[in-house]
Amino acid sequence: MDRPFSKETVSRVLDELGIKDIAHATIRQTVAVAAKLEQMTGEKFVHLEMGSPGLPANRIGTEAQKRALDAGVASQYPNIAGIAPLKANASRFVKAFIDIDISPEGCVPTVGSMMGTFASIILCCNLDPSKDTILFLEPGFSVQPLQVDILGFKRKGFDIYSCRGERLRDSLESILREGNVAGILYSNPNNPSWVCLTEEELGYIGRLATQYDAIVIEDLAYLGMDFRKDLGKPFMPPYQATVARYTDNYMLMLSASKIFSYAGERLSTVAISDRLFHRKYDNLVRRFGIGELGNAFIYVILYALSSGVSHSAQYALAAMYEAACEGRLDFVNDTSEYARRAKILKGIFINNGFHIVYDKDLDEAVSDGFFFTIGRDGYTGDALVSELLHYGIASISLSTTGSHQQGIRVCTSMVDEESFKALDERLALFNSNN
Amino acid sequence: MDRPFSKETVSRVLDELGIKDIAHATIRQTVAVAAKLEQMTGEKFVHLEMGSPGLPANRIGTEAQKRALDAGVASQYPNIAGIAPLKANASRFVKAFIDIDISPEGCVPTVGSMMGTFASIILCCNLDPSKDTILFLEPGFSVQPLQVDILGFKRKGFDIYSCRGERLRDSLESILREGNVAGILYSNPNNPSWVCLTEEELGYIGRLATQYDAIVIEDLAYLGMDFRKDLGKPFMPPYQATVARYTDNYMLMLSASKIFSYAGERLSTVAISDRLFHRKYDNLVRRFGIGELGNAFIYVILYALSSGVSHSAQYALAAMYEAACEGRLDFVNDTSEYARRAKILKGIFINNGFHIVYDKDLDEAVSDGFFFTIGRDGYTGDALVSELLHYGIASISLSTTGSHQQGIRVCTSMVDEESFKALDERLALFNSNN
Repeated sequence: MDRPFSKETVSRVLDELGIKDIAHATIRQTVAVAAKLEQMTGEKFVHLEMGSPGLPANRIGTEAQKRALDAGVASQYPNIAGIAPLKANASRFVKAFIDIDISPEGCVPTVGSMMGTFASIILCCNLDPSKDTILFLEPGFSVQPLQVDILGFKRKGFDIYSCRGERLRDSLESILREGNVAGILYSNPNNPSWVCLTEEELGYIGRLATQYDAIVIEDLAYLGMDFRKDLGKPFMPPYQATVARYTDNYMLMLSASKIFSYAGERLSTVAISDRLFHRKYDNLVRRFGIGELGNAFIYVILYALSSGVSHSAQYALAAMYEAACEGRLDFVNDTSEYARRAKILKGIFINNGFHIVYDKDLDEAVSDGFFFTIGRDGYTGDALVSELLHYGIASISLSTTGSHQQGIRVCTSMVDEESFKALDERLALFNSNN
Repeated sequence: MDRPFSKETVSRVLDELGIKDIAHATIRQTVAVAAKLEQMTGEKFVHLEMGSPGLPANRIGTEAQKRALDAGVASQYPNIAGIAPLKANASRFVKAFIDIDISPEGCVPTVGSMMGTFASIILCCNLDPSKDTILFLEPGFSVQPLQVDILGFKRKGFDIYSCRGERLRDSLESILREGNVAGILYSNPNNPSWVCLTEEELGYIGRLATQYDAIVIEDLAYLGMDFRKDLGKPFMPPYQATVARYTDNYMLMLSASKIFSYAGERLSTVAISDRLFHRKYDNLVRRFGIGELGNAFIYVILYALSSGVSHSAQYALAAMYEAACEGRLDFVNDTSEYARRAKILKGIFINNGFHIVYDKDLDEAVSDGFFFTIGRDGYTGDALVSELLHYGIASISLSTTGSHQQGIRVCTSMVDEESFKALDERLALFNSNN
């Protein structure tokens, strides 16, 4: 049977937008293609491409932010290190949900984790003149390698798909042994595969980071969203898994975008271990005139990047951290909506002849959550993205995420009840055509 | 007569804060020293050091921002290129107060002009592999050269004090002739000297930028604050002076911090000339896969720096631009309070034996405004900063601003009526002791 969106229509839109191959388009270009096709045909797309929060912003945050605006903070430069209530509550939040002790001093707001990783990459690559490389556990968020490229540093990486457990340790060490790795960067849970590193694996990473004196940049954008356990009870186990239990060389990226559905205000906390914060580096003195890592991060790098973070939004984040610590804001329960959708979506794909690509954390099935990965026998990831576009389904290829596996990334956030039915019908048609 | 703050007390505080020489401290360290001295002695300081707005944030902005929060924008990633109403009203604002035509497309929000210049420096130094140098007209804002250093690019500069008119042209050309200048950066009105470049001088800069294919990064943080003319009537001459009348190679930095007293929300617009926005560069394709300057700036550099600007604050800025264009928000009249204070402060300094350092724009006295510069015969700028500290007066040395003149920068923003009297008494004491 004919595909809902014809070859001619799709080709015309891609031509108009100057896109040679949809599989190599950026996420935002893919969004534009789908919007244009919807507009031309009047047919709605199933949007599996965008990683935006699909939930409303937390009201505790917006109310606190409005109060701060009324109190007049908009005219005053924010403290670059972060306002005191944010720092105090961030420290408490880290203790409540990760069970790690970090002083308020080491909890520093950034303009999203985007700036958090950008600034951390600058910092790590300026600690030691012989270390200029960021090591990525792949797949990952495609803009992070771009940040390294923009800054002119070097990068390495490997796909964790076939490197779990001891093989992860061995792959890491083979690269660290070269002696030029300044930082190790990954997200956990992983974007896009939703792989969650195990305590064993985090132990390897932490101990190797100490041994080779590299700094782990751990992106916890999806904190608490390994829904196989309930990570949402403050100051009660189980806690979010983290490398921070296994090394002092860590900087945690705590984005408010997904945890509190606060992506619009561009807000994150970088939490630096106390020991690392106070460690002194000769090269920082040479480069920036300040030796202590934490102070160089704040008063040189963050100062020069944006001179701090939205003053009113810092009050929002402080209030949300506080409410979460006091059990008044159950962000894990709120975001478990993504897991509910993932379960349904995975079922629809599997019923129609598809399979999960990154399917296991060692011997356990991956959690349901914000993302998952889908493959189809006989299709590369790129070909699948392109073919699904003709069925009114927008997605991105795993090839754009540093993965060497064949498949697509599915994001659960923008999918509503109505889309479930459409997806099922379209995948059934795909299945009968293939 | 004894100085109000003794050598012992001042030395102790400097020691405690790890500051070897107050004249080489950062502005924020100076603030900390003054705060500590106030706390120890119970005596208030006269604060001439901080460049924070001394006026309340504009309510048109805060009300629009609160409405946007109520409408739910906090959960949604902002368009990285800027929300449509901000882009449209920024374009209109540029026409109304600068009399330059820039399409909405070329008006792009950044997280303050701090990020505006950081991103622009990255952009300019990636256009042509042979151009890796930013040329500064000095003195200037000390963090801008730091940005170049952090990024590992090169910089040159010269003090405009003795290079006005044709000598400015000749000094510029002698450096541009070397062929490695990617960008020319200055603020106008100038921080710290409050020099305003004349139309003649802007003409030289513009034509040379075109001839040597360098991009002018014009920091208009103090737009409209040359109070010798009334620059505050929308769509009516006289207009803010700008290099944009003399070249297409320009990017204007329009900070909301001082114009609308909106420093807390970290918000600025970078306005790029239409021709430059659409210019294609082979090196941008090689480096980032996008050839057009404007799109590389937005979708590569700004994306990677912060993934856009506070969604709610963009509505604030859009509303303030709109109100200014419609004559409902007279930001020039609002900020003329700084000129009133400058006039009084200059009088107090001069009556007590001090002089203005950067005193003229060619044959005209500099405007009163946000900053001015003060010298004292027999004192270097560094010595003057140090000595005034003992009189309870906090300031910064011109030596930290790229100036080769001897003196201090005075900021009028944080000085209230009460401080005028204290300043007069303390400077009289200084005068009788010297």
